[in-house]
Amino acid sequence: MPQMHAARRDRAAAIAAALGADAVLITKGVNVRYLTGLASSNAAVLIAVHGGAVLATDSRYAGRAERDCEDVELVIERDVEPALTGRALADGLRTIAFEDMEMTVRRHRDLAEGQYPGSGDLLPAWTAVGAAIDELRMVKDEAEIELLARACSITGQAFSAVLDRLRPGVTERDYAIALERTMIDLGADAVAFETIVASGPNGAIPHHSPGSRAFEAGDLITVDCGALCGGYHADMTRTVVLGTPAAWQQEIYAIVAEAQAAGVAAARPGADVADVDAIARDLIEAAGHGGHFAHGLGHGVGLEIHEAPIIGYGREGRLQDRVPVTIEPGIYLPGTGGVRIEDTLVVRAGAGAAGSAQPLTTITKELLVL
Amino acid sequence: MPQMHAARRDRAAAIAAALGADAVLITKGVNVRYLTGLASSNAAVLIAVHGGAVLATDSRYAGRAERDCEDVELVIERDVEPALTGRALADGLRTIAFEDMEMTVRRHRDLAEGQYPGSGDLLPAWTAVGAAIDELRMVKDEAEIELLARACSITGQAFSAVLDRLRPGVTERDYAIALERTMIDLGADAVAFETIVASGPNGAIPHHSPGSRAFEAGDLITVDCGALCGGYHADMTRTVVLGTPAAWQQEIYAIVAEAQAAGVAAARPGADVADVDAIARDLIEAAGHGGHFAHGLGHGVGLEIHEAPIIGYGREGRLQDRVPVTIEPGIYLPGTGGVRIEDTLVVRAGAGAAGSAQPLTTITKELLVL
Repeated sequence: MPQMHAARRDRAAAIAAALGADAVLITKGVNVRYLTGLASSNAAVLIAVHGGAVLATDSRYAGRAERDCEDVELVIERDVEPALTGRALADGLRTIAFEDMEMTVRRHRDLAEGQYPGSGDLLPAWTAVGAAIDELRMVKDEAEIELLARACSITGQAFSAVLDRLRPGVTERDYAIALERTMIDLGADAVAFETIVASGPNGAIPHHSPGSRAFEAGDLITVDCGALCGGYHADMTRTVVLGTPAAWQQEIYAIVAEAQAAGVAAARPGADVADVDAIARDLIEAAGHGGHFAHGLGHGVGLEIHEAPIIGYGREGRLQDRVPVTIEPGIYLPGTGGVRIEDTLVVRAGAGAAGSAQPLTTITKELLVL
Repeated sequence: MPQMHAARRDRAAAIAAALGADAVLITKGVNVRYLTGLASSNAAVLIAVHGGAVLATDSRYAGRAERDCEDVELVIERDVEPALTGRALADGLRTIAFEDMEMTVRRHRDLAEGQYPGSGDLLPAWTAVGAAIDELRMVKDEAEIELLARACSITGQAFSAVLDRLRPGVTERDYAIALERTMIDLGADAVAFETIVASGPNGAIPHHSPGSRAFEAGDLITVDCGALCGGYHADMTRTVVLGTPAAWQQEIYAIVAEAQAAGVAAARPGADVADVDAIARDLIEAAGHGGHFAHGLGHGVGLEIHEAPIIGYGREGRLQDRVPVTIEPGIYLPGTGGVRIEDTLVVRAGAGAAGSAQPLTTITKELLVL
């Protein structure tokens, strides 16, 4: 494991070098975790372009850092960013790349104006790294994919285990609690995000919070849920119907299912993310529901529930081998109801030239009539 | 409720006016919620010094905002900050105060360099508001205190309800899950933070995450937990002992209990926060454990689990009527174990001149021998 983190830090150092910096100061929590193995709410790591890394965290995490991060130098300080900035100057590292998409204006001003003992009047020069460190996390190694697969497996098992709670009279909230508890009982560390349970007319609201509405016969019910394992986030959506589905329910379900399958089939190495979105979106538009699908088709998942790449209209980039993404089209009819179907899958180079998508959420996508 | 939010916005406008700004752009989620009533992961509000407020959020929250925030103008846009900045310029509001402790360097740069249709070459002038908006939330109204009291009551009830799970053989993690589920079953919206369960030697780690260690006879067990109700966070810690306590366990418990009682008694309107910390800390130091109490004595609670005021060494400010705070001294003996006792209470002007602290977490602080 330490070797894996060292290799990741070498890639971060290369980013800093390309920016002309002497070092990069990593302050975003999931990036610190990715580059050192330490999960902490107060930590930062300084990676020098010419080798060497210093991890700073406070005394609460000292034991964990000593145990898990033996190949980096450790500094125990509450104010981790000034400590590492001072250390950079002491080491002759003047130009520091920083995570401008994470650091607040105030923290950056304080760092820029800080006094660093022993460095005289020297102040660092700062250069913004943008999303480059986040993007390092996009292509996963097999250990990461295994954690994601486990999270996805637990998610599907939990959904199946509490299927009998999707019945008239149960409230959205009570069902959500039962589902989340089942994920924990099956071994999830936590839930990956607040479960969405959107029943009946609420199904038209893509991010509906589960409330006191009781399920009724005839409802479409959309459930968007995921387990968290070792820091990795599963993301899965299924829509079921209570009782015999109406014609309009069958119709929009079939359109979404077709669009979802087309999106999954298109998620291959080299595919342009806007094209993948368009392949699914065009089917929904052709069916007359273009105005009823107002969000992107999918997103990367990993140490964050939403991360690069974003698969959507106007987005740029290409899918690659070992990139996990979601494919999640939906149709939302205001005041009436909605359908969304979502899988987490891994783009794989595979045996064939074009590669394929390996689904991690594997439970059925047939319309479940309960 | 809308009148309450309007009065809060008037106070925010006064802060902007004192900074010489024409308006303040609020981007921190809990502050947007405090000033408008809207809980959203993507919202901002622009408050003009001379009256008027515009709330921006995306389509996911449109319904909720229309229902709950009828006294503000609503703009539905995904990129809420550019939308409100453009609106400010269009309204002739040139100098905008912003939350520099929330906004990232990148988002601020994008706003500062943005193109705003209809405003020609005009760009806003920005002025940093620091923590002033956060500090508006420090003194609570009675409706807020009621929500906190409910969260604290549920926390105590849940702790009592699962007391029988604090027995040899139960793991920290299984106990934490049982306690958290009980809080939800008793009506909490969620847990206020990840429960800390630190047993035996783990008790020496103030923020220990509950793990696979099974409780053993002779353990001190520290449980730090809280329920969330209507956005308000309870915070309570109790330490129990399994079996007859050893002399050293009784001794450090008695010291912490005495320090905690002294801190609570000192938490009166007008008290200096460093003095309140010192009153409790001096007792622990006098008992020879100064080096074993390495964190502050307490903190404000409300829409955030940690907010102003911070009660600690070197901190500035005075307690006021209707400010909820925690008082939570501890003694941590590395490798051996620890004790922490924490209540959430409200500082009250009261009938007497000096006022008093009203405890919100009210279950016993006697050493429970289980």
